[in-house]
Amino acid sequence: MIIKPTLLLDEEKCIKNINKMFLKAKDNNTSFRPHFKTHQSLQIGELFKDVGVDRITVSSVEMAQYFSSEWNDITIAFPVNILEIDEINQLAANISINILLESKESALFMKERLLNNVGVFIKIDVGYNRTGIEACDVEIVDEICSIIDNSETMSFKGFLAHSGHTYSAKSKEEVIDIHNKSREILIDLKAKYIAAYPNIIISLGDTPSCSIAENFSGIDEIRPGNFVFYDLVQNSIGACSLDQISVAMACPIVSINYNRNEIVIYGGGVHFSKEQLQDKRYGNIYGIIVEPKDNAWGNAIDNMYVKSLSQEHGVISVPENIIKDYKIGDLLMILPIHSCMTVNCMDFYTNKSVKINKL
Amino acid sequence: MIIKPTLLLDEEKCIKNINKMFLKAKDNNTSFRPHFKTHQSLQIGELFKDVGVDRITVSSVEMAQYFSSEWNDITIAFPVNILEIDEINQLAANISINILLESKESALFMKERLLNNVGVFIKIDVGYNRTGIEACDVEIVDEICSIIDNSETMSFKGFLAHSGHTYSAKSKEEVIDIHNKSREILIDLKAKYIAAYPNIIISLGDTPSCSIAENFSGIDEIRPGNFVFYDLVQNSIGACSLDQISVAMACPIVSINYNRNEIVIYGGGVHFSKEQLQDKRYGNIYGIIVEPKDNAWGNAIDNMYVKSLSQEHGVISVPENIIKDYKIGDLLMILPIHSCMTVNCMDFYTNKSVKINKL
Repeated sequence: MIIKPTLLLDEEKCIKNINKMFLKAKDNNTSFRPHFKTHQSLQIGELFKDVGVDRITVSSVEMAQYFSSEWNDITIAFPVNILEIDEINQLAANISINILLESKESALFMKERLLNNVGVFIKIDVGYNRTGIEACDVEIVDEICSIIDNSETMSFKGFLAHSGHTYSAKSKEEVIDIHNKSREILIDLKAKYIAAYPNIIISLGDTPSCSIAENFSGIDEIRPGNFVFYDLVQNSIGACSLDQISVAMACPIVSINYNRNEIVIYGGGVHFSKEQLQDKRYGNIYGIIVEPKDNAWGNAIDNMYVKSLSQEHGVISVPENIIKDYKIGDLLMILPIHSCMTVNCMDFYTNKSVKINKL
Repeated sequence: MIIKPTLLLDEEKCIKNINKMFLKAKDNNTSFRPHFKTHQSLQIGELFKDVGVDRITVSSVEMAQYFSSEWNDITIAFPVNILEIDEINQLAANISINILLESKESALFMKERLLNNVGVFIKIDVGYNRTGIEACDVEIVDEICSIIDNSETMSFKGFLAHSGHTYSAKSKEEVIDIHNKSREILIDLKAKYIAAYPNIIISLGDTPSCSIAENFSGIDEIRPGNFVFYDLVQNSIGACSLDQISVAMACPIVSINYNRNEIVIYGGGVHFSKEQLQDKRYGNIYGIIVEPKDNAWGNAIDNMYVKSLSQEHGVISVPENIIKDYKIGDLLMILPIHSCMTVNCMDFYTNKSVKINKL
């Protein structure tokens, strides 16, 4: 019985999402290295193993350590944190890991201090402007390549990029446009270096691009993560239907205000995270309410959404004509704005009363 | 040695904050029941015991369970979640707890199902408009009082309110104004009920009010929480100086971009939370950078702030003239926007290399 904020998993939807993306990668002859930062769970990782996935992406050394008990080919898609050199050496002693380099300084440090073989991707900035080397900075790429060449432990794997700017795209067309530009940048770069490094690959692919785009030609590997659950951000971009979102929060009603047409739930920023979304109809929201259905949930309820969150409270705006249908102690089911952040706040998932552990 | 995002505690500042608020309560003849949702730590709770605090506030049954091993007088300042009745009964069997009622439905449920004695506060809405009964709704207050009177387990403790609207105040004067209005509402209410219930008290006092206001006459109990650490939100309200903030995050530098004058740290939304603040000088920010100093930190660095956060990355805007002073692998120290949320994201504190556990 659910008595406090609980993260629910609809395993059927989740498996459908995994299968669909797996087949899309296969049909496009691109390797599938899903990002596991979204679910952070060995048990959910099993669902990927079931379809044949054998390599993954994570965003921290800590996550790589956690998944290394069951996965032996992991890319840590984050600019290498040189302070974790001992942890990286320990990982590389046991499994295949790839790290990301984007500066001469980090490359020299790793050359000096790595004890075991690691693969290296050079991180390219394709326009998101967060991390990575601009593709025109051939000089830095060359310098890093030369450090890798002179290293006994590092082998150059290719170029990796993250088109994170698809998350602020206003239409599917814009996502496709960003995706194609990123693709071209990496293809050009690979063409420059393929003679010297015949085995290099290019790795690209965020969830919006991988969900919406159809042209993956030239891309050797994709690394979407969020698609396993999807969320309201992805829905607003056009990357998924509401029906594909495979996680929801169940939260008890603790207060009902008929004057303001508001319900207060036990469920706040410490459960959902404070991620918000500018919704066309409702303005700034923190989640939308869906109908309960069997062991899971059904359609979204019109005009019912989370209007604010404090540490433990969530305030729900409720249509006047249905507020009388709710009573204190009922559970509301709520689709999250950003599933990666909500999942990170919660200790485990519940799936038809089965507890699924996570990092 | 710090190698990944770490929450640092400056214990000296923290003890000063505790002492100051304790003495303010004492000087104003009001009982001090600090809110522990901010720190969520038995070890930090010890610092409160050291000055003589013997009663606390929490915001969930879970927190009450955690603190019940060392505290025997706890108010759960959240509209009672009737689904946790078994947990509440278990707590009430061992320690003194107070719950919050604001509806007839919850009152009837608790009357029916409580097995042990609990104190009850009626939650009053003093203008924050999140939870609570409006003070003019005497009918509902009377109904709840009558349910309490007819209960064998509940005893009426008084009226409790939270002036959460001080958090959006634009000046100290506005905070004082909200505080005084709230005070008057509760004083009037107490006057109406004191003849029937001679022992009732009024409980009020968020961190902005308790830090800024001087007039606590008529208030029997205050429950501030955030003051133990303070943060940039409190600083922006005028509730504290930057120098009083007693927690900071230490995060490794993983990337430096001299073209954009940006540094990327290992430290993102999963560490800081995504809480943001509209800063007068910098616009929308997620933290500001302070100078390292001995085992702690010193002054804020002008024009250096966290401009964006993703799951594990933080992007820092750095003044052009000092960016050359930083190198990959250095630690940046960052004051959080909302310490309650940042602390909740992190597993423990580090204080001069001593690990301090939390819930």
